Amino acid sequence: MKVKGFLFSAVEAAIKKPGRLDLALIQSLQPATAAAVFTTNSVKAAPVLLSRERVALGPIRALVVNSGNANACTGRQGMEDALETTRLVARYLEINEEEVLVASTGVIGQPLPMDRLSVALHPLVSALSNDAGLDVVAQAIMNTDTFPQMGCRQGMADGKSYTIAGIAKGAGMIMPNMATMLAFVVTDAAVELEWLEQIFTAGCDLSFNAITVDGDTSTNDTALILANGAAGNEPLGGHSEGAPEFVALLNDLLLSLALQIVRDGEGATKFVSITVTGALNDLQAKKGAKAIANSSLVKTAFYGQDANWGRILAAIGYSGVTVDQDQIDLHFDDVQMVKNGLFAGGDAEARGSEVLRRKEFCVTVDLKLGMGCATVYTSDLSHDYVSINADYRT
Amino acid sequence: MKVKGFLFSAVEAAIKKPGRLDLALIQSLQPATAAAVFTTNSVKAAPVLLSRERVALGPIRALVVNSGNANACTGRQGMEDALETTRLVARYLEINEEEVLVASTGVIGQPLPMDRLSVALHPLVSALSNDAGLDVVAQAIMNTDTFPQMGCRQGMADGKSYTIAGIAKGAGMIMPNMATMLAFVVTDAAVELEWLEQIFTAGCDLSFNAITVDGDTSTNDTALILANGAAGNEPLGGHSEGAPEFVALLNDLLLSLALQIVRDGEGATKFVSITVTGALNDLQAKKGAKAIANSSLVKTAFYGQDANWGRILAAIGYSGVTVDQDQIDLHFDDVQMVKNGLFAGGDAEARGSEVLRRKEFCVTVDLKLGMGCATVYTSDLSHDYVSINADYRT
Repeated sequence: MKVKGFLFSAVEAAIKKPGRLDLALIQSLQPATAAAVFTTNSVKAAPVLLSRERVALGPIRALVVNSGNANACTGRQGMEDALETTRLVARYLEINEEEVLVASTGVIGQPLPMDRLSVALHPLVSALSNDAGLDVVAQAIMNTDTFPQMGCRQGMADGKSYTIAGIAKGAGMIMPNMATMLAFVVTDAAVELEWLEQIFTAGCDLSFNAITVDGDTSTNDTALILANGAAGNEPLGGHSEGAPEFVALLNDLLLSLALQIVRDGEGATKFVSITVTGALNDLQAKKGAKAIANSSLVKTAFYGQDANWGRILAAIGYSGVTVDQDQIDLHFDDVQMVKNGLFAGGDAEARGSEVLRRKEFCVTVDLKLGMGCATVYTSDLSHDYVSINADYRT
Repeated sequence: MKVKGFLFSAVEAAIKKPGRLDLALIQSLQPATAAAVFTTNSVKAAPVLLSRERVALGPIRALVVNSGNANACTGRQGMEDALETTRLVARYLEINEEEVLVASTGVIGQPLPMDRLSVALHPLVSALSNDAGLDVVAQAIMNTDTFPQMGCRQGMADGKSYTIAGIAKGAGMIMPNMATMLAFVVTDAAVELEWLEQIFTAGCDLSFNAITVDGDTSTNDTALILANGAAGNEPLGGHSEGAPEFVALLNDLLLSLALQIVRDGEGATKFVSITVTGALNDLQAKKGAKAIANSSLVKTAFYGQDANWGRILAAIGYSGVTVDQDQIDLHFDDVQMVKNGLFAGGDAEARGSEVLRRKEFCVTVDLKLGMGCATVYTSDLSHDYVSINADYRT
């Protein structure tokens, strides 16, 4: 995945086990417009605190990212290490350190191995190239992910073709004390800053903020987009002719990355879309869908392929969302299980169980109270989830 | 467990498999002052709706309870069945039907088998006696509970001795589509209504509302106390000499019942007390403790005996509670793992792992911001939890 005006590299810095890439760099040859969404967790890792500050300041020229260590709960030393990392990258690239962002993913509470990391930064910068593409960065940010999560879209603006490429890893805290969802998107399209912030935040809401594996929000979650304008188009804004296409391509890419994360969820055997319609408003619909998606009882039922609609009604009931229990309808794919709060009867049990044996299916809950609607994507809760998370550090 | 002026009975009504008691009755020989706490789930079972109405109306003389079927999500027919059950009990006991409460626990969404249930009500009333004690009711409300949960306390008021006895089953929705936590307390002490409501609600907050197995709130949760005055004391109220003792005994009994529920949690291998201190206020402390207790990542770490303090800090971080990440302290029993947001170092890792190998231990998080404090009791998330909940109906 090549994108004009961007160079990429990845090396082994021995933060993880030997033989694994764990340090990567993205360089934009010209200053890039940047927008980002960071974790809402009150406990924030040092790289999150630093990068949040810098994205707010102005254009960005580089992002350095490591896996294997989250640099979270590391106090003042953690901030010093994050600063030093960007300082060294800036020196080797001959740019300002304020133009360098940093991200980390991995174990919480251990200091970064700065001796090994700082030694690896020079070879990392030397390895920057246009050949490898964003793929090498995707490789380097994997922890226990089973496949690199990435995607690429192409569009046209002012007769110039542009590329949007993205990579991601590990949803929320589906990774144990390995904190983090990271998502990095780079595009050679020129985009106005304010509009980029607006559409990127909205796109993340419909994608990364619509997935949940275990309901835990990490200390390091970061989604970032860099737009460097190398495609040569007039900067895209809300009124540009090419705006709708750009938004559509970006949203499609973000959703694709988010769904790859769910499919790669720890121990996941099912991929489930949960839609709540007929809520009083969209916020309530999302709250209800999240309550269903995060219920351990609902998730174990998915794993057990049990068409247990009672647990779903109970979850929406305790979600805090306004419901009239005598009006709720519920479908598994096209099979109606519940009609006006009552079991639909007939062969619904058998046909519903049939649906749950599928690897992917939809749960739709209609509250019939208003126009609010939202979809959340999740996986099941399996024996393997427990194994992976119980035994991770041992 | 005998209590003056109360009769008890239980029979097989074939709601569950043959050979299992599944229908029980408590009769107070004189009208009893009643107070109750019901589920906050918006989806409420018919018996909850009916009993809530009747407790508000006045004194109660009987409670009929079945297991095996929750009579939840059963619509108008469910309410008819609940009414008919209390009507038949009232007729056989020659009392008003408004004086009869009803509770149900079991599968959601299936109609009560009224043919079998109604036939069993007459033998149930005939079997009422003072001999069997509350224990038979405890037996009859078990679903997959592995032991009957009960307790008994004795005190003195005005030179009269009184008894408080209680039974409970299944916390929250630790039971799959078997909805329900039920807790019934009976006492022969005379107690003023308003004060009884007040201390019972407060007592439930410190006990049943301080336990969590999987964070799911059922459609049927009911905690009830009946005080019939057969002990002959002057009705206890806030200013009575015997008030402090009564409150202490009641709270002690309620907490004991609640902790028995956690110990009997599905697949539980650990019993963990989670205390948050130094929060801005008690509500925030409880919110933080609950977020920790309900985190699947924290619970699997307990199961894996992994001293994974990073997950606990992440959970309090996303709980919505005010924290200063550079001030947090964390202990496993007496071992300090985190000091001012940083790993405490030394042999903390080894000693912390030691603590987690215990069957019971405490996690204490000190936010050092204020005087708010709360404790929540929980269990771990094990392979057996997944098995029980994935395979329950199959």
